[in-house]
Amino acid sequence: MYSVGIDIGSVASKAVVFNGEDIISKVILPTGWSPRETGEKVLATLLQEGKIERQQIKVIVGTGYGRISLPFLDKKVTEITCHGVGAHYFDHEVRTVIDIGGQDSKVVKLDAKGNVLDFLMNDKCAAGTGRFLQVMAHVLEIDISELSTIAEGAEPQKINSMCTVFAESEVVSLMAEGASKESIAAGLLQSVSNKTYSLASRVGVENKVFFSGGVSKNPLLKIFLEKKLDVAIHSSPLSQYIGAIGAAVIGYGKNVLVP
Amino acid sequence: MYSVGIDIGSVASKAVVFNGEDIISKVILPTGWSPRETGEKVLATLLQEGKIERQQIKVIVGTGYGRISLPFLDKKVTEITCHGVGAHYFDHEVRTVIDIGGQDSKVVKLDAKGNVLDFLMNDKCAAGTGRFLQVMAHVLEIDISELSTIAEGAEPQKINSMCTVFAESEVVSLMAEGASKESIAAGLLQSVSNKTYSLASRVGVENKVFFSGGVSKNPLLKIFLEKKLDVAIHSSPLSQYIGAIGAAVIGYGKNVLVP
Ligand code: SF4
Repeated sequence: MYSVGIDIGSVASKAVVFNGEDIISKVILPTGWSPRETGEKVLATLLQEGKIERQQIKVIVGTGYGRISLPFLDKKVTEITCHGVGAHYFDHEVRTVIDIGGQDSKVVKLDAKGNVLDFLMNDKCAAGTGRFLQVMAHVLEIDISELSTIAEGAEPQKINSMCTVFAESEVVSLMAEGASKESIAAGLLQSVSNKTYSLASRVGVENKVFFSGGVSKNPLLKIFLEKKLDVAIHSSPLSQYIGAIGAAVIGYGKNVLVP
Repeated sequence: MYSVGIDIGSVASKAVVFNGEDIISKVILPTGWSPRETGEKVLATLLQEGKIERQQIKVIVGTGYGRISLPFLDKKVTEITCHGVGAHYFDHEVRTVIDIGGQDSKVVKLDAKGNVLDFLMNDKCAAGTGRFLQVMAHVLEIDISELSTIAEGAEPQKINSMCTVFAESEVVSLMAEGASKESIAAGLLQSVSNKTYSLASRVGVENKVFFSGGVSKNPLLKIFLEKKLDVAIHSSPLSQYIGAIGAAVIGYGKNVLVP
């Protein structure tokens, strides 16, 4: 028996197949204009790539902002709960999840069983999210995936404005003044780290800390955040799937959670 | 004897000459890259256009964020204080000043003598400022000065995101879905009105209310704000000069303030 978890985020849609022990298939696609079409495409691709028949899937659980648009779900669960369960699946010792997605960021505190004790979410302000970095990569005329690479080893340029709009003007001025793209890129990652730090401090951070979401793929951001929070931060190549994994684990049945 | 007030804002720099009773000359110029150069240019233009000799000026008072860069000032005063004094000069019955500038907004509460009792300022977030409208005018491919004109009489389109960055995407989507520029423009002015309302409610609004700053030149925004606050809002063709006027009045001597 398999369960499927689908996480329709504002920027990327993720889905995984869970066999009760392992994630045996995964798919990520841009969400685009229609969460419903994307959800169907994600499911079809998942089955096809995993060579899985529809009837082998016992249950499909949806999460993420676009879950309301999916007609084929057996269950809908909030992303906060799914992030908790997903992080617990990765490592039972995780007590804090820091997730930075394409358009939001959240900090979720967990108990020893992966239940949510507390959380804070920012989905109102583009600062400190993937969107901030996307806007800035555009100004720097680089791909967002290059930000961390070019920033490595550079002295971070101080970016005074937290606001995406004001920081964008600041970056334009800095470039006009001859500041290097490398130092600006480092400064921008530091800005996201600072904004995340203030969100995390308001909830309180407890060990172990797990870093997830698309933006967690920036190694330099992870380093800045570790320094700022003064804790080791754990992640996984699958961390972008954490919501989908949590949904699949919940679909499979809660018992898989308890060690 | 004359006094001069200079207000170097983030977007526009304003200066006025005061003769103890009336504003006899005024100038407004874009601030541009160098507040210092702009300040000097504003002063020179002011004297030239007003046909005033430098020695007729007894005192020059500076305000606005760029005042620190001006070497020729006799005195520097915060924009909050200057806005209070300036509004009091316009109308002794003003108790609340709502100022929306190019990159910030503030609400200042005054006593019967124009002294500041309380204030709140937003200069961290582009939402609810002229910058928000500037970004949106660009998306709508109209001049910022046309926003209020085209919006007049249109049913305001609801803009869900307060954040400039997210609202920008929303406007792009709305246009793709065929919403009219007129209704979007009205919706954007309503968004600024809502953001201003929440700032004003936190300080508390008392009659009379004076509306100033570059953004106050949008008649429709004034109407939205009056409806939302449920008070009459007063303004003046000179309202964009309120900070400079306050500075000039302070320079002239406090006695001119008391009726
Ligand atoms: S601070 Fe900037 S990025 Fe954040 S909500 Fe305001 S406009 Fe948006």
